[in-house]
Amino acid sequence: MKVAVLGTGTVGRAIAARLAGLDHDVVIGTRDAEATLARSVSDAMGNPPFAQWHAEHEQVGLVDFADAGTHGEIVINATSGAGSVAALEAVGAGNLAGKVVVDVANPLDFSHGMPPRLFVADTDSLAEQIQRALPEARVVKTLNTMNAHVMVDPSRVPGAHTVFVCGDDEDAKATVKELLAEFGWSGEAILDLGGLRAARGTEMYLPLWLSLWGALGTGDFNIKVVRA
Amino acid sequence: MKVAVLGTGTVGRAIAARLAGLDHDVVIGTRDAEATLARSVSDAMGNPPFAQWHAEHEQVGLVDFADAGTHGEIVINATSGAGSVAALEAVGAGNLAGKVVVDVANPLDFSHGMPPRLFVADTDSLAEQIQRALPEARVVKTLNTMNAHVMVDPSRVPGAHTVFVCGDDEDAKATVKELLAEFGWSGEAILDLGGLRAARGTEMYLPLWLSLWGALGTGDFNIKVVRA
Repeated sequence: MKVAVLGTGTVGRAIAARLAGLDHDVVIGTRDAEATLARSVSDAMGNPPFAQWHAEHEQVGLVDFADAGTHGEIVINATSGAGSVAALEAVGAGNLAGKVVVDVANPLDFSHGMPPRLFVADTDSLAEQIQRALPEARVVKTLNTMNAHVMVDPSRVPGAHTVFVCGDDEDAKATVKELLAEFGWSGEAILDLGGLRAARGTEMYLPLWLSLWGALGTGDFNIKVVRA
Repeated sequence: MKVAVLGTGTVGRAIAARLAGLDHDVVIGTRDAEATLARSVSDAMGNPPFAQWHAEHEQVGLVDFADAGTHGEIVINATSGAGSVAALEAVGAGNLAGKVVVDVANPLDFSHGMPPRLFVADTDSLAEQIQRALPEARVVKTLNTMNAHVMVDPSRVPGAHTVFVCGDDEDAKATVKELLAEFGWSGEAILDLGGLRAARGTEMYLPLWLSLWGALGTGDFNIKVVRA
């Protein structure tokens, strides 16, 4: 499948590499591909320069946002939350009309230092903001409740654990669940929370995730929903 | 141990009954004990009149907040979040000085209908509000991430699953962990998140909990933190 991953950070790289390894035809979209490749220093999050990663993943193309929109039959938003709506608008409403947009970002606000706050919560979510900005896209929220390595390889964490899916389009959710299965998520692990509004809850889980990261001393963890 | 449970709703009743069953000397504290006992209709949450519950749990005394503060060596806040600070102030700062105050409430705001919103989040928490209002109390947040039945009987949900504990006083947390163990929480299940600030995360989990409740069709569930 032709997939466009938006964002050149840890999450975008992990998802693009995994999809390419699964023989999908993958591009990463960014604001200015030329500038991204020219950068020779690590980014603000400590990731090595993109060109270094790209040299090891040559099968993944790097293109500007609009070209990513042309390429992708599915578009995965792995940009920083604060830039997500602008990134998707740069991909283009026309390019995204009718397409599945998988939102794995979180509405993190680092402007007040660490830990980050959320710039939207409780009465709205980043996923809903994206859906409103692109009403013809079929937005599905998933994978935002764990680190990038666990997203694409759930076997890093032992046993069954949970990935949440929500969105207003049932067919789009079914497509995303197939993609999750390719990543290694079992049917038991995938928990459908219903409509996109449930993204409020999965995004608001982030402060607890950050506390757990601190308490456990590793990002390689997840939660499992256990019911009676 | 002499324990005061604040609040006559589902959570207060469940915790008081469980503690009494464990042979603790338990009272429930409320604003006006006489008025509570005189009520003959179900409350807003559909709980049967308190007097009916009380007839089946005669070993649990019902007293006004201030008397609860005199009785309890440990005080458990199971009032509605919106009324928690006022309730604890009515118990009395003097009565609570040096005591362990276990906060199991959530900052739910039902004034806009269902699902409830949070009246504090992200930059503050109900637990921290309580700690600021009663600086000499030793506030520990726990048990607020599950329903009342699972709180006091984790075996309702199969296998190991997680209860979070946070607070700024290590001795107070140790006391609370002993109480959790009496309820049936194993050492593996109890996850210490550090200082009281982590209550922000456990309180902000509530919207996800509500989504899960809807998706699973039962409140008898919990999350288990699984790490690599």
